[in-house]
Amino acid sequence: MPEEIKVAVIMGSKSDSDVMEACTIELDKLGIKYEVKVSSAHRNPDGTKRYVEEAEKRGVKVFIAGAGMSAALPGFVASLTTRPVIGIPIDSGLPGGFDALLSMVQMPPGLPVATVAVGKAGARNAAILAAEILGVSEDAVTDRLLRMREEWRKG
Amino acid sequence: MPEEIKVAVIMGSKSDSDVMEACTIELDKLGIKYEVKVSSAHRNPDGTKRYVEEAEKRGVKVFIAGAGMSAALPGFVASLTTRPVIGIPIDSGLPGGFDALLSMVQMPPGLPVATVAVGKAGARNAAILAAEILGVSEDAVTDRLLRMREEWRKG
Amino acid sequence: MPEEIKVAVIMGSKSDSDVMEACTIELDKLGIKYEVKVSSAHRNPDGTKRYVEEAEKRGVKVFIAGAGMSAALPGFVASLTTRPVIGIPIDSGLPGGFDALLSMVQMPPGLPVATVAVGKAGARNAAILAAEILGVSEDAVTDRLLRMREEWRKG
Amino acid sequence: MPEEIKVAVIMGSKSDSDVMEACTIELDKLGIKYEVKVSSAHRNPDGTKRYVEEAEKRGVKVFIAGAGMSAALPGFVASLTTRPVIGIPIDSGLPGGFDALLSMVQMPPGLPVATVAVGKAGARNAAILAAEILGVSEDAVTDRLLRMREEWRKG
Amino acid sequence: MPEEIKVAVIMGSKSDSDVMEACTIELDKLGIKYEVKVSSAHRNPDGTKRYVEEAEKRGVKVFIAGAGMSAALPGFVASLTTRPVIGIPIDSGLPGGFDALLSMVQMPPGLPVATVAVGKAGARNAAILAAEILGVSEDAVTDRLLRMREEWRKG
Amino acid sequence: MPEEIKVAVIMGSKSDSDVMEACTIELDKLGIKYEVKVSSAHRNPDGTKRYVEEAEKRGVKVFIAGAGMSAALPGFVASLTTRPVIGIPIDSGLPGGFDALLSMVQMPPGLPVATVAVGKAGARNAAILAAEILGVSEDAVTDRLLRMREEWRKG
Amino acid sequence: MPEEIKVAVIMGSKSDSDVMEACTIELDKLGIKYEVKVSSAHRNPDGTKRYVEEAEKRGVKVFIAGAGMSAALPGFVASLTTRPVIGIPIDSGLPGGFDALLSMVQMPPGLPVATVAVGKAGARNAAILAAEILGVSEDAVTDRLLRMREEWRKG
Amino acid sequence: MPEEIKVAVIMGSKSDSDVMEACTIELDKLGIKYEVKVSSAHRNPDGTKRYVEEAEKRGVKVFIAGAGMSAALPGFVASLTTRPVIGIPIDSGLPGGFDALLSMVQMPPGLPVATVAVGKAGARNAAILAAEILGVSEDAVTDRLLRMREEWRKG
Repeated sequence: MPEEIKVAVIMGSKSDSDVMEACTIELDKLGIKYEVKVSSAHRNPDGTKRYVEEAEKRGVKVFIAGAGMSAALPGFVASLTTRPVIGIPIDSGLPGGFDALLSMVQMPPGLPVATVAVGKAGARNAAILAAEILGVSEDAVTDRLLRMREEWRKG
Repeated sequence: MPEEIKVAVIMGSKSDSDVMEACTIELDKLGIKYEVKVSSAHRNPDGTKRYVEEAEKRGVKVFIAGAGMSAALPGFVASLTTRPVIGIPIDSGLPGGFDALLSMVQMPPGLPVATVAVGKAGARNAAILAAEILGVSEDAVTDRLLRMREEWRKG
Repeated sequence: MPEEIKVAVIMGSKSDSDVMEACTIELDKLGIKYEVKVSSAHRNPDGTKRYVEEAEKRGVKVFIAGAGMSAALPGFVASLTTRPVIGIPIDSGLPGGFDALLSMVQMPPGLPVATVAVGKAGARNAAILAAEILGVSEDAVTDRLLRMREEWRKG
Repeated sequence: MPEEIKVAVIMGSKSDSDVMEACTIELDKLGIKYEVKVSSAHRNPDGTKRYVEEAEKRGVKVFIAGAGMSAALPGFVASLTTRPVIGIPIDSGLPGGFDALLSMVQMPPGLPVATVAVGKAGARNAAILAAEILGVSEDAVTDRLLRMREEWRKG
Repeated sequence: MPEEIKVAVIMGSKSDSDVMEACTIELDKLGIKYEVKVSSAHRNPDGTKRYVEEAEKRGVKVFIAGAGMSAALPGFVASLTTRPVIGIPIDSGLPGGFDALLSMVQMPPGLPVATVAVGKAGARNAAILAAEILGVSEDAVTDRLLRMREEWRKG
Repeated sequence: MPEEIKVAVIMGSKSDSDVMEACTIELDKLGIKYEVKVSSAHRNPDGTKRYVEEAEKRGVKVFIAGAGMSAALPGFVASLTTRPVIGIPIDSGLPGGFDALLSMVQMPPGLPVATVAVGKAGARNAAILAAEILGVSEDAVTDRLLRMREEWRKG
Repeated sequence: MPEEIKVAVIMGSKSDSDVMEACTIELDKLGIKYEVKVSSAHRNPDGTKRYVEEAEKRGVKVFIAGAGMSAALPGFVASLTTRPVIGIPIDSGLPGGFDALLSMVQMPPGLPVATVAVGKAGARNAAILAAEILGVSEDAVTDRLLRMREEWRKG
Repeated sequence: MPEEIKVAVIMGSKSDSDVMEACTIELDKLGIKYEVKVSSAHRNPDGTKRYVEEAEKRGVKVFIAGAGMSAALPGFVASLTTRPVIGIPIDSGLPGGFDALLSMVQMPPGLPVATVAVGKAGARNAAILAAEILGVSEDAVTDRLLRMREEWRKG
């Protein structure tokens, strides 16, 4: 039986894939299965909704969503699932991705988005945070995180 | 036959009603019929969607949406209709409503939100902008706007 | 009888034409007739005034104004007409066009400027917003907007 | 056998307890057992370290850390455990808690802090995010989250 | 023959008079004759234009203009005269009058506005700057400025 | 008898000369005699003091000072003379010269710095503002400013 | 023989004394002798210069300078001595003392100002930093700092 | 007997060495012995702790720490020693190193970080500040600082 996909990586636009790749590379290193989806909250809310609901049913446990500018995607995903949603602000509007950062982190009470740093640094951390979340119930994932840390200390 | 309601005023939370009242007072002064709806894009996306689609069918021509913090409401409404959507950033998170302002104005290409100033000043201007939009095809509304301006010059 | 020009695209300086072209390309796609005018609110207030008043008389229904730095143009146009004025902040002063964004969106009560995102993203959205405004009374324009959206969902 | 404590709520200073209470109230509503600890990363790094390592051994699965100003606490906790760390920026320095927000969210690659909104809104969301994380492996927690959402839609 | 009025103090709205009084008190201390005018660039461009042109003809040598939010007044005055225009940003929109500050100081090449600090501190400095400008050709005014400085050193 | 030098252009460092040249080019166009001095308020306060006091005695009527980062130069010059001091913020530290802008414009009550826009746009406006100040008592300078404006309107 | 005064606490204005008292209270706790001086860099540069030079001769080893707005005082003191200068940004202009913070910390190469946090938190830390600096050559001061830390860990 | 190393230059990542070299070049010019250490507060807290404690025992009197993004390193070093800690914010996250600047300077009461300007300007000033601190008890270092200043005045 193939290992289940537990992480979905969503981005609002193909132009975000350069940043989001930093996330999937890190997921690969951590040995975590994931799927990648391009779907805009604004341009295709119905399609995004169907995807999130169906992914959750298939067993996705953590959603990682990257978006720039007004960056509604992670908040929209959060409104569709009770799985943890990690948001990666992408620098495609105001300098530094400041618009995306504030749009993501300042979610109103009720629907958290676990926001990480802007850009590639955040994309890598989103992968590690997803692993930490899965590691709560999967010791094998936590073991891989511990090994990653040991390598840092040596290197 | 009663005059049709052409403007819908939506807010994400009842706590926004203090600011939004500055908008409805101005709509009253301009003699524009409107309806008020409290519906959160984040907490109730399905209900908000049903409301917007049904309002458009009933003849609503302009949507005015106020929201604070990550302020997804106007962008979400914009994704559901091709009617003009006016966004009022509300100061309920970071000082000055800065988070709401950036979340609203920095919409990605495809789905504009006509953003006005933060808070009550913006709320009043949202009403006037709605009147200007209706005035494109209704001379009676434009006449009322012109009369308002003349009063300024006197006062 | 030739179709009337209903949208005027104004910019304060020829150096803004690179950004403003993103707006006119989108207007072309939407089949909306427009005219382009370079006129500075600051350097030539009388000429700008004459142009706006005469354009309105000729039948212009929506003004789109792009400007950078202290970005007075859209507010000045708004003071001369009761037609809707859409403002595009242009990044030619402080990083991200922050000065232009605040100058435009923070209009005092009475004279709204429908502000969109900074730069080319906003310029494209200004065209779509103008179409939405005209679409309030012209079903053919709304039809073109609906078709544009369907293409997104496929693409 | 008593239910295990799975969430630790840490704050750098007693003066943060007003904000952090918004978090524990929400945890109570969600029926999640937690413990509260006051320990400063800066003033008592050794004590904080001992606490985090011992809490993890006792079975704590998620750490929630609130801090203001340079807000090192969540990052410091993250360096001591591979459990998910949720950071709540607290407004006790620059207006809006801007210093705390940037210090928390801009973690360097390797050590994510799942950052939520500044202040009480974020504190409530931190509780919900912790529940979502535990819900990945505990259906009972997810059920409570789903019930909370249904109540919103009614209310 | 009465002394000529050489300084005009203009504000966009009566609500700015509290800040602008800090300016006129300082002008009084410096023994400089001035007149005060309330006229909005946005609400009454024609009236403002007439006033500025007529004031210049009557002998006004320096214009001091205070405004909040998008703060177009000083730039508008600058477009109507070649006399120096001093701008006082007023805090009536975004916190700290940040919108007014950027709108004023970031004037495009060709039309300077001599911008001073936000609020009452700036209002006082606007009066002193006006005196320094008049002092270029009036030694009596410079003498009063020198005496003011000596008093500081004692006090 | 040679025409007196009435404008002194001071910069804190030779690296600012690229921006400051935009100022002197404009002064040349306006036919205004000036001198250029490189002298740092921080590195050489005594030398800067001697220069300002001696320049004022020689007949300098307006000081234009450009500086970056903490940008103390214009404020320091202002503390040494009662002649008008124009400040040009230069972008050599934080993005957009934001540090220099705030350091310059936010002068405490008593010592105004007439602040213009950041960088070359501001440098050009500093020259025009100096001409406007001299024009208060020299009609020939005002005539040149009026001619410059007429050319804009044609061009 | 009385213990020498080794720390000078300078403020630009009496209105800063509320914040600066947080500094002197901490110096008292640490048993460090200090003197307090009110002297403005802008309003009285000569007096400030004389004071700094004379204080250094009398044996002052560390200068602590608090100032608001354009906050030139610490940089001016730094230009007059090679003793370490600690700067405390005070919130008396833009919200959060942002203007003072940037004016202080962004000193150009050559003249460092050791900048601490805005307001009372920074004022307390300025005292501790002064103690740390003196502690480099005075073990008794370092001992008091170590005792202070031990008390934190207990408390 | 070899001269003791009194300054430790620490950076969180090798990628910071370009900026930190501006600091060591200046230390060389001032004839101050130093050692360089790469050690991350976040990735290797134990190793960093051991290094700081051992360096202090060997006689290090001043720590200079550069870091970017959430920039915890200088605050972490400050929590481990009572020697003065100088922080250099590095621009590796948000534009201008704004995140690092606020994370560093806004230390809570008790643990000061002597913060200097962002980037290379700050790195040079960190070296000079370290020299000023050592100069409190070593006249030879103060002499070298005084000679450096004289050269500025000539040059």
